[in-house]
Amino acid sequence: MYKLLICNSTLSDKLFDPGCLHTSFGIRKEKKDHYTNVPRNANLEKLPKGYLFPEISLRQHQHLEQHPDASLISLGIGDTTEPVPDIVTSRMADFASGLSTLEGYRGYGAEQGNKELRKAIAETFYKDVNVKDSEVFVSDGAQCDIARLQLLLGSRVTAAVQDPSFPGYIDTSVIIGQAGDLDHETGRYHRLEYMKCGPENKFFPDLRRTSSTDVIFFCSPNNPTGHAATRQQLEQLVKFAKDNGSIIVFDSAYATYISDDSPRSIFEIPGAKEVAVEISSFSKFAGFTGVRLGWTVVPSELCFSNGFPVIHDFNRVVCTCFNGASNIAQAGGLACLSSEGFEGVRTRVNYYKENAEILLDALASLNIKAYGGQNAPYVWVHFPGMNSWEVFDMILEKANIITVPGCGFGPGGEEFLRISAFGHRESILEAARRLKALFS
Amino acid sequence: MYKLLICNSTLSDKLFDPGCLHTSFGIRKEKKDHYTNVPRNANLEKLPKGYLFPEISLRQHQHLEQHPDASLISLGIGDTTEPVPDIVTSRMADFASGLSTLEGYRGYGAEQGNKELRKAIAETFYKDVNVKDSEVFVSDGAQCDIARLQLLLGSRVTAAVQDPSFPGYIDTSVIIGQAGDLDHETGRYHRLEYMKCGPENKFFPDLRRTSSTDVIFFCSPNNPTGHAATRQQLEQLVKFAKDNGSIIVFDSAYATYISDDSPRSIFEIPGAKEVAVEISSFSKFAGFTGVRLGWTVVPSELCFSNGFPVIHDFNRVVCTCFNGASNIAQAGGLACLSSEGFEGVRTRVNYYKENAEILLDALASLNIKAYGGQNAPYVWVHFPGMNSWEVFDMILEKANIITVPGCGFGPGGEEFLRISAFGHRESILEAARRLKALFS
Repeated sequence: MYKLLICNSTLSDKLFDPGCLHTSFGIRKEKKDHYTNVPRNANLEKLPKGYLFPEISLRQHQHLEQHPDASLISLGIGDTTEPVPDIVTSRMADFASGLSTLEGYRGYGAEQGNKELRKAIAETFYKDVNVKDSEVFVSDGAQCDIARLQLLLGSRVTAAVQDPSFPGYIDTSVIIGQAGDLDHETGRYHRLEYMKCGPENKFFPDLRRTSSTDVIFFCSPNNPTGHAATRQQLEQLVKFAKDNGSIIVFDSAYATYISDDSPRSIFEIPGAKEVAVEISSFSKFAGFTGVRLGWTVVPSELCFSNGFPVIHDFNRVVCTCFNGASNIAQAGGLACLSSEGFEGVRTRVNYYKENAEILLDALASLNIKAYGGQNAPYVWVHFPGMNSWEVFDMILEKANIITVPGCGFGPGGEEFLRISAFGHRESILEAARRLKALFS
Repeated sequence: MYKLLICNSTLSDKLFDPGCLHTSFGIRKEKKDHYTNVPRNANLEKLPKGYLFPEISLRQHQHLEQHPDASLISLGIGDTTEPVPDIVTSRMADFASGLSTLEGYRGYGAEQGNKELRKAIAETFYKDVNVKDSEVFVSDGAQCDIARLQLLLGSRVTAAVQDPSFPGYIDTSVIIGQAGDLDHETGRYHRLEYMKCGPENKFFPDLRRTSSTDVIFFCSPNNPTGHAATRQQLEQLVKFAKDNGSIIVFDSAYATYISDDSPRSIFEIPGAKEVAVEISSFSKFAGFTGVRLGWTVVPSELCFSNGFPVIHDFNRVVCTCFNGASNIAQAGGLACLSSEGFEGVRTRVNYYKENAEILLDALASLNIKAYGGQNAPYVWVHFPGMNSWEVFDMILEKANIITVPGCGFGPGGEEFLRISAFGHRESILEAARRLKALFS
C-alpha cells in the first residue's frame, strides 16, 4: 500500500541527511538571526518527536557500526522487490518515448485520471458491485489520498482507527486537527477512538463497545496484522456505520493478496455505497511503490448529513490540491489491467504469498504463534508477555533480521512483531533458517 | 506552473462526465435512502459554486453547439504543447524499461526525492545563492506542494495574495480554513489580504497600505499578469516580510521565462532565506504538465516564532502526506538538468516566448495595451471599462479564440484578459491574424 512514514527504503541515504537526522533524532536548536512571527502549527506539535522507522534505522545503523560485516536481511518496510512485468514497463517506456513526438505528446490530463484507466479499474475490481468510472479517482498512491480525504473531512469530525493500524490514518488526523492531544501514558490521542483488533476478537473490534464517530478508518487485509475481514465482519461494520451515520474509509490496498472468500472490496457488502469510500493502490499489487499510482472510489450515493454528495467535494479537493497522477504511471496502470499484464502482476503477488508461507511454516515449526500471511504479505507474530522493541532488538542482534516492532502501529501492537514477506526468495529462506536457529 | 482548477485540458471529456457536470453546473439533489450524519466541511462550503474553467468549458461547449464547424484556437489554459527533448524521454523510457529487470527495479524512494536530482536542482537553479540539496523537496508539481504547505501552516495563520493571482493560493487557503467568509459583493474573502497588482503600481503592491500577515503568496513571473518582479521590488518584499515576521511563499514556476535581469529566485535577495520558501516546477519549464514533477525549497534558516525550523515540519508533512514523485518522472527531471537536456528544454521555452512576442506585436499594432509576455508565457491584455467576461464572449464569438477573463483571477483582474502563449506556432499566427481582423 504505502510506506510507513519516513526513512525506509533509502535508510542509509536518510541517515546521513541532516534534514532527516534533525527531525528524527532531536532538533539541534541554534539561535538564528531572525525568527518569523508565524506560530508553529499546533497540530504538528502534537505529533510525537520520534517516529517508528527512523528509530528502526537508528538501531540498524548502530548494529552495523558494531557489526560491520553483518549480513542484514530487511523484512521491515513493506517494499516490493520483484521486477514489474515486461508488458507493463514497455507500455510505460513507449508512452515516455512518445512524449518527444508531436503525435505522442500529452500535457495536462484530467485531475481525476485518464478515463480509460478509470474504466479499467471499475471493470477489473468492481465489476460485480456496480462502481462507475466516474466514481473512480486515480491518485499517486493511497497515502496521498488519505491526506486529501482529511482535507475533505476537515478538523471537526471525529474518527476511529483500528489498533494496531498503519500510522498514516492517525498522523493525518493529527495534522488536520481531529485527534486532540496525545496521552503519553497510553500512547493514544484523546479524541480518537481506538478499535482494538487482536487474536482475542478475531482481529475485529467489539462494536458494542465502540463509540460512534463520524469517520471509521478500516484496513482489510490489514496492515500490520495481515487479517482479511470476513464477509460477516464487514456486514457488521457496514451496519454499524449505517446505524451511526458514519463514513467508512476502507483501505483495500492489499486486496489482491486475498486467497479465501473474504471480500476484496467493501462494496461487496450491500448498502456499503451509502456509507463508505475505498482507497487502494497499484503499489503492492503491481510493484509500483516507486512508480506511484493508486485510486479512490467515492460512490455517488454517499452524502453528508445535509444531503450534499461527498463525491463533489472530493472532486473539488482533488482539482485544487492535486493535478493528476503522472501520465506515464497511468499508462503503466492501464497495462497492468490488460489480461496479459494482470497475469504478470498476479505471479508477483503469488511469489510474495509463497514467501509468507515459508515464514509461517518456519514459525509454526517453532511453535511461535503467528497470524496473517494467508491473505496478506505480512506475518504478525505473537511474543506473549514480551516488549516488542526487546524482541526486535534480539532478532536484529542474534539473527541480523530487521522486522517492525508491533507497538509502532499503536498500543494494541505491543507483544507483536510484523515481518514483511516482500523480498527475494533466497533472503526469505535464509531468514527462515536464522529464525529456526535462533528460536529452536 | 499548474493548471487552473478543473476541466481544462480534457474539456470535452469532462463536459460529459457526470461528476464534473454536477459540480460545475449545479448539483442535482435527489433524496437518497440514507444520508450519513457527517457534517459537510464548512471550509469547502465557502468555495464559490461555479469556478472559472468549468464556466469557460460551458461557454466553449455552447459555442460549438451553435457553430459546429468553428475552428477554435485555445489560448485559455496554460498547457504546454511542444514535445519533450529526446534525451529526456529516452532517459525516462530507459528507467521504465529497467523496472522489469532485477538490476533496474526500484521500489520506494526517499519522500524528499532522489538525492541526485535534489543536488542537480540546487546546482542548476540555486548555484549562486547557496541552497543545499537537503533544502530541496522534490514534488509532483507546485500545485500539490501549495496544498502541502497549507497543511504545514494550518488554519490559524493569516495570508495575503496578489490580486489578480492564480486561484490555487486562495482556494487552498479556504480549504484549510484560513480565509474566512466570501464577501459576494467584492469577491473577496474576509480574512485574506488582497495586494492589488496592476499597471498603476507596476504590478507590485503598495506595501505601505498592505496589512501585515503571517504568510504572503507571491508569484513571479506572475500568473496571470506575466510581470516579473524587479530586484528592487523583491528587496522591498523581503524587507516587508522581515519587518513583519512573515513567511513569503514564492512561486517561481515561470522563472526560466525571464529574459531580463529580474531575479529568477527569491533567494537572490539577501536575507530571503530567513523569510521565504520557494515553490517551482518542471511543468512549464520542461513540458512536464502531464509527467508531474516540481520542487520546493525550504531553507534551514527559516524558523517559526518559537525558533522551530520550518524545514522539519515540512519534512514531516511530506513524509506523512506524500510518498515521493514518480521515480520515472524524477529520472526525466534529472535528464532535463544535464547540459544537453537543459539546452533542449530551453529551446521550447524560447519557442513559447516567440509565440508571446507574436501576440504582443499583433496587439501593439492594434493599439491595444498589453502587459507581460516578455518574461512569461502569458499576455495580459487591458480593455479599459469593459467587463472581462464580455470581452471573452466577443472574442470567442467573433474570432473563435478561447482566452481567460481576468476577473477569474480575482477582482483585480476585471477589465483584463489573459492570453496564453502556449500553442503550436501556426495556431498562434492564426490567432494573431484573427485578433487583427477583429479589432482593426
